[in-house]
Amino acid sequence: MLEPVPVSDEFEPKFDASGLLTAVIVDAQSKAVLMVAFMDAEALAATRASGFAHFHSRSRGRLWKKGESSGNVLAVERILVDCDQDALVLECRPAGPTCHTGADSCFFRQLEDDALRPVNT
Amino acid sequence: MLEPVPVSDEFEPKFDASGLLTAVIVDAQSKAVLMVAFMDAEALAATRASGFAHFHSRSRGRLWKKGESSGNVLAVERILVDCDQDALVLECRPAGPTCHTGADSCFFRQLEDDALRPVNT
Repeated sequence: MLEPVPVSDEFEPKFDASGLLTAVIVDAQSKAVLMVAFMDAEALAATRASGFAHFHSRSRGRLWKKGESSGNVLAVERILVDCDQDALVLECRPAGPTCHTGADSCFFRQLEDDALRPVNT
Repeated sequence: MLEPVPVSDEFEPKFDASGLLTAVIVDAQSKAVLMVAFMDAEALAATRASGFAHFHSRSRGRLWKKGESSGNVLAVERILVDCDQDALVLECRPAGPTCHTGADSCFFRQLEDDALRPVNT
């Protein structure tokens, strides 16, 4: 039987070579995955200080509060941290559809052979 | 009312500058997030061909079949694709604990102030 691997109980987020970690946003009630984004130290600090999800936009190269233009903010209820502290799960209450397409979740399609079909829940 | 944004129904995965996309592994039954990893084109092809989750290890710089040494493989039941096709959710049946610590999920701790505590489910 394998011994459990010891892990620290201090929060020491591990940002990658680009200064980012991965954030998975799930609905606090349904637990459905709503979106995936990246956080740098600034986005993580803004999220923890405000209680609303902030990310680092890789395309725009800046801090981005989710919903800053649409109003569809994400109120963070709980943050889960993975074993090696380079990924977070944010359990959130969404103020509206999370996806810019108007869908509740960005993951509204499933792969079937080489085509994308609406998710069959 | 906003018009829905048109999206393609062709699968055209968008790998980032490092040739990677993000894969979120969820338990096909409970929907709990088990782990987060990265896939390059090779890992995605191996996953689709075999039905078992394969990733690209950034630290080892190579293709990695999850469970290749532990036996704790992940049988992929469904792949969800996000709006801009740079992230996937893999709904999987795990053969054993997913985390190398022996926990079912890599996300077994939650952030409370600056400390990590066991997840209070």
